[in-house]
Amino acid sequence: MTDTLARRIDGKAFAAGLRARLAAEIPSLGFQPGLAVVLVGEDPASQVYVRNKAQQTVEVGMRSFEHKLPAETTEAEVLALVATLNADPAVDGILVQLPLPKHIDADKVLLTIDPAKDVDGFHPVNAGRLATGANALVPCTPLGCLMLLQDLHGSLAGMEAVIVGRSNIVGKPMAQLLLKADCTVTIAHSRSRDLPALCRRADILVAAVGRPEMIRGDWIKPGATVIDVGINRLPPDASGKSRLVGDVAFAEAETVAGAITPVPGGVGPMTIACLLHNTVTAAKARRGV
Amino acid sequence: MTDTLARRIDGKAFAAGLRARLAAEIPSLGFQPGLAVVLVGEDPASQVYVRNKAQQTVEVGMRSFEHKLPAETTEAEVLALVATLNADPAVDGILVQLPLPKHIDADKVLLTIDPAKDVDGFHPVNAGRLATGANALVPCTPLGCLMLLQDLHGSLAGMEAVIVGRSNIVGKPMAQLLLKADCTVTIAHSRSRDLPALCRRADILVAAVGRPEMIRGDWIKPGATVIDVGINRLPPDASGKSRLVGDVAFAEAETVAGAITPVPGGVGPMTIACLLHNTVTAAKARRGV
Repeated sequence: MTDTLARRIDGKAFAAGLRARLAAEIPSLGFQPGLAVVLVGEDPASQVYVRNKAQQTVEVGMRSFEHKLPAETTEAEVLALVATLNADPAVDGILVQLPLPKHIDADKVLLTIDPAKDVDGFHPVNAGRLATGANALVPCTPLGCLMLLQDLHGSLAGMEAVIVGRSNIVGKPMAQLLLKADCTVTIAHSRSRDLPALCRRADILVAAVGRPEMIRGDWIKPGATVIDVGINRLPPDASGKSRLVGDVAFAEAETVAGAITPVPGGVGPMTIACLLHNTVTAAKARRGV
Repeated sequence: MTDTLARRIDGKAFAAGLRARLAAEIPSLGFQPGLAVVLVGEDPASQVYVRNKAQQTVEVGMRSFEHKLPAETTEAEVLALVATLNADPAVDGILVQLPLPKHIDADKVLLTIDPAKDVDGFHPVNAGRLATGANALVPCTPLGCLMLLQDLHGSLAGMEAVIVGRSNIVGKPMAQLLLKADCTVTIAHSRSRDLPALCRRADILVAAVGRPEMIRGDWIKPGATVIDVGINRLPPDASGKSRLVGDVAFAEAETVAGAITPVPGGVGPMTIACLLHNTVTAAKARRGV
């Protein structure tokens, strides 16, 4: 424990800055990048995400193509739409909002997206490019975490990074990005022994497990940078209010860490900003810019 | 240091057993898998490798197709040959022996190989499938290391694995395989701080750096399993003899480790055996077996 509280890493402000830089760059490109979002069904959370994505896409000066399909849409219809978007020169990025209804094979849909338009970075071709050090479209959340870390530290070379969680969407691509940034990288997970001791090794601790406040203050090395990817809604308390917490026990952690992302307002806002960033990257790459 | 020396992991014997199992399986498949090897130029070491691969391919009962091209072969000619092999139904695996002459872009050639026939596991599609937990053709050397480890330990779940080296051919796919096997995985490399201390954490230490005897005995946790991927030829000594050593100082390490692969005779023989294994895997997958 230290006398001062950890610096709060302001992802909301960084994301706004990233969007502003994109908005400033786009008019000079000579073309208008376009992002297509496909939403199948009526999931309320997904509808909010898709609305926010479309709004921010337009705000930075890109074209937004929304495709809202009813829940009973067949897999063949979704695959046909993706094929159309793959062929559409106005579309630089394609995002299929997950989860899809159960009768649609999400893996099959994601594999159908042209890797050059795969702005979520979920296609195995992009995972493979990332894993082999080639140019890739990188999953948005870990890319956002990397940007926050590099903004804070500059070079990360030689730092010891511990990632808790090994999902394809966050943990594994985060490991690749931190390895490329010359960190010593450890991936820990549910089968790891003595997780507190593993976490205490970290100069950079990335929590991506989806378990509310699992990582306690005494798991953190004094002065470490803590990136909390978790967004967990707690059940309502006695007053009927529910609140969002991360995978890290924030109040404990901020007395030990050197810097920490809050929840909300830390990693969360970076995800859509990085989606827009990826769409511009894809648009330039497709045109050989 | 312990009173007894480490158990020597006999990769030569394990590889012979693996080849025998393949030889026993192949006649029951109903088809004869085929492996095509492309060698461009006269590199003496490559010629030895290719001869050994062809010989072992035939010995287990598969067809071997050798394509030896002169050093002045153009890139276009190599790409055309790969396209022919991609289309040839008798060819289940394609291996282009590296290094290629400087005027040929090796990445371009490897990207041209049908991922379903990429028995070296170097294509980004296979790297991406491995990285996302899908079925993949896995690079032969790390696959061989995993087989030796699982033969020795059974389940590796919860063990702490440290990999020294982050190449696309060994270190990175090794990390993916050990993560899939539920190890806690750390990747260390030239920019890592205090490598001896990092190595001393390892229940499983994989050395893949290509530096003779870099890893000393006192870097090893007593009882750990040490997998030495390095094959380094030392300069001739006073008597004019040169000898092969690994990345681990074997004489020191075997007084501390619980088990260790010797060099030669450890990991080395596993590579071709796993190439044959991958060819059978690819042949079955292509036919939906």
